Amino acid sequence: MSSQTPVPAGFRGVAGNIGIKDPNDDFFAVVSEVPARVSAVFTRSRFAGPSVLLSRRSAADGSARGVAVIARNANVATGRVGDSHAHELQERVARAAGVPPEEVLVASTGVIGRPYPIEKVRAYLDALPEEFPPADLDRSAAAMMTTDTRPKTASATVGGATLTGIAKGVGMIEPNMATMLAWFFTDAELEQPVLDEVFRRVVDRTFNALSIDTDTSTSDSAAVFANGLAGPVDVAEFEAALHEVALKLVRMIASDGEGASKLIEVRVTGARDDAQAKRVAKAVVNSPLVKTAVHGADPNWGRVTMAVGKCEEETDILPDNVRISFGDVETYPAEATDEVLERAAQHMKGDEVVIGVGLGIADGAFTVYGCDLTEGYIRINADYTT
Amino acid sequence: MSSQTPVPAGFRGVAGNIGIKDPNDDFFAVVSEVPARVSAVFTRSRFAGPSVLLSRRSAADGSARGVAVIARNANVATGRVGDSHAHELQERVARAAGVPPEEVLVASTGVIGRPYPIEKVRAYLDALPEEFPPADLDRSAAAMMTTDTRPKTASATVGGATLTGIAKGVGMIEPNMATMLAWFFTDAELEQPVLDEVFRRVVDRTFNALSIDTDTSTSDSAAVFANGLAGPVDVAEFEAALHEVALKLVRMIASDGEGASKLIEVRVTGARDDAQAKRVAKAVVNSPLVKTAVHGADPNWGRVTMAVGKCEEETDILPDNVRISFGDVETYPAEATDEVLERAAQHMKGDEVVIGVGLGIADGAFTVYGCDLTEGYIRINADYTT
Repeated sequence: MSSQTPVPAGFRGVAGNIGIKDPNDDFFAVVSEVPARVSAVFTRSRFAGPSVLLSRRSAADGSARGVAVIARNANVATGRVGDSHAHELQERVARAAGVPPEEVLVASTGVIGRPYPIEKVRAYLDALPEEFPPADLDRSAAAMMTTDTRPKTASATVGGATLTGIAKGVGMIEPNMATMLAWFFTDAELEQPVLDEVFRRVVDRTFNALSIDTDTSTSDSAAVFANGLAGPVDVAEFEAALHEVALKLVRMIASDGEGASKLIEVRVTGARDDAQAKRVAKAVVNSPLVKTAVHGADPNWGRVTMAVGKCEEETDILPDNVRISFGDVETYPAEATDEVLERAAQHMKGDEVVIGVGLGIADGAFTVYGCDLTEGYIRINADYTT
Repeated sequence: MSSQTPVPAGFRGVAGNIGIKDPNDDFFAVVSEVPARVSAVFTRSRFAGPSVLLSRRSAADGSARGVAVIARNANVATGRVGDSHAHELQERVARAAGVPPEEVLVASTGVIGRPYPIEKVRAYLDALPEEFPPADLDRSAAAMMTTDTRPKTASATVGGATLTGIAKGVGMIEPNMATMLAWFFTDAELEQPVLDEVFRRVVDRTFNALSIDTDTSTSDSAAVFANGLAGPVDVAEFEAALHEVALKLVRMIASDGEGASKLIEVRVTGARDDAQAKRVAKAVVNSPLVKTAVHGADPNWGRVTMAVGKCEEETDILPDNVRISFGDVETYPAEATDEVLERAAQHMKGDEVVIGVGLGIADGAFTVYGCDLTEGYIRINADYTT
């Protein structure tokens, strides 16, 4: 296999078609040839699937070599059968890769409530090669797509180390510990507690700042695997690189949100603290009336005031102190003349719309990412299965 | 004027066209000819408009005779000018009706961020008749429509008294103290504290159980005016009648939700308490993936598990104890065979879809009302103004 996206040293893998639903790739596994440190975060859904529960246990000791993913079936709400299928996936991949089962995380994405076609899964896994070739991260990213229209990969270097992330979206996305599925592989060497601290901080500002449709998946999982083959790196540089790679993936997911035609970035500043800024930003980016206004390239700042206003608990938000802008064009409280609205509309006709909200309280700030709401979202989701 | 919908004794009114936007009626006032008791609830939005702030003060003493409404302009985020316009509306209507200004509530609905065309408003109000004729509640209900496709009225009798409610929706609807605009008129006689207690209890189970699109209006207002002309009534009977009338209006608003093709009723039972049942029910009725599945008449119960699952704080919800049904067809945990799914799909092809969720914890219960999400919602809101 050959990957356009750089592959850090020591990561091997396989990808292919099990036949879950169609002839496209629906499986991949990426495993480090040497032990690796892991940090992982998972959905907080009460209906978290057995893959999530199993991977959470496997990652708990800070050590894991990689991950195996099945797409086009979430293996969620499938009872004891689903539980046993998740274990079987973990065990068979680990056996093929020659590592202990608890060193392989598993994840699954797709329709909820149907067991795997387990005979097909077994037949496929039994035929895996004795030794995995070097990983192909482009093909791996493509293999986990569901309603995604394009694979999502991003990469950076840190000193002599390589960091590559792959992710999928693009519906049921309002992660609260992680996003749908995102995997980071690096040959950098970091202590596990440091890796963990850095990863959680980055996830909070990237994947947890993303919302496509306010629905939280039962399968959200994100992890970083660091096998250390490139030696130690500067931690601050690593965090910056991880943030950059994660943010690229987040922007790709938002741009490719189900039916989306535009990425929306909501920048809230002047808040009491960052947490308040995040709550207000989420209210704006999740408002269907704001999302449809963006779709229509309509600088309807009144809907932004509505969305800010519905943060009813935030009693220190005073309408007189609020400022609203589209791109660099302020539309409130400045008088929104026809000329001002025309410039705002021009900004909104682009592929990326930036909505600025100043709260005028203190200096808390947070930026979130989402997309517009279009007829395409309705079509995809009114027709998608069962 | 002649009203098909019964008008309680002593309520007089006017309705007509100011010319805010088009030649359709965009104004009405209904005022009791004798003093009346009032109970009123309003939006908790931080961007509540000046009409809301003024009416909240006017209703605070439990006494008010009626309400004046301007449609097609919300008079929200209009600064000091909007504040003065709201006062002017109140004063001019009160003068025409021959009552003190603080006895008239005012409300406004429509586009945010534009001042009234105040000269037109003044000219219209100055030409009002010296004595108002008996109120026409059908015409009044029609006069406050914005994206509503039909006027919403409901009526009941309590002993010898009449109770009539009129309401409008149908977007920016997730009320948290009231809905967009809903007015109840009755000639029943009740003590104000009793009226207030009954009204708040009914609103909590009706308007606060309604959600079209998770967006909370800046103008939500609901009030009941009781002028006592028909004498005392049994309070329990009155509460039952008020609940019945309010629920009819809520179902009308949900059915007429922007772009809606189906009413959705989510009945959560077996919760720890009613408040938990309401949180879970809201998560289900507001899920865009559930709403689009209903639009497609797809018994995709997996999306209902997802929506229940995203109530992450409700740690006593255990997937094994949850039951999900469409109409009277249980789809989880019972095996959802093709025959079961076909019967559930049949139910979903109707105009009203009932989703049942049993939590298996205790006996808390709550029912909420909403609608499906369709291409029509996108079209209405991607094109609506500015």
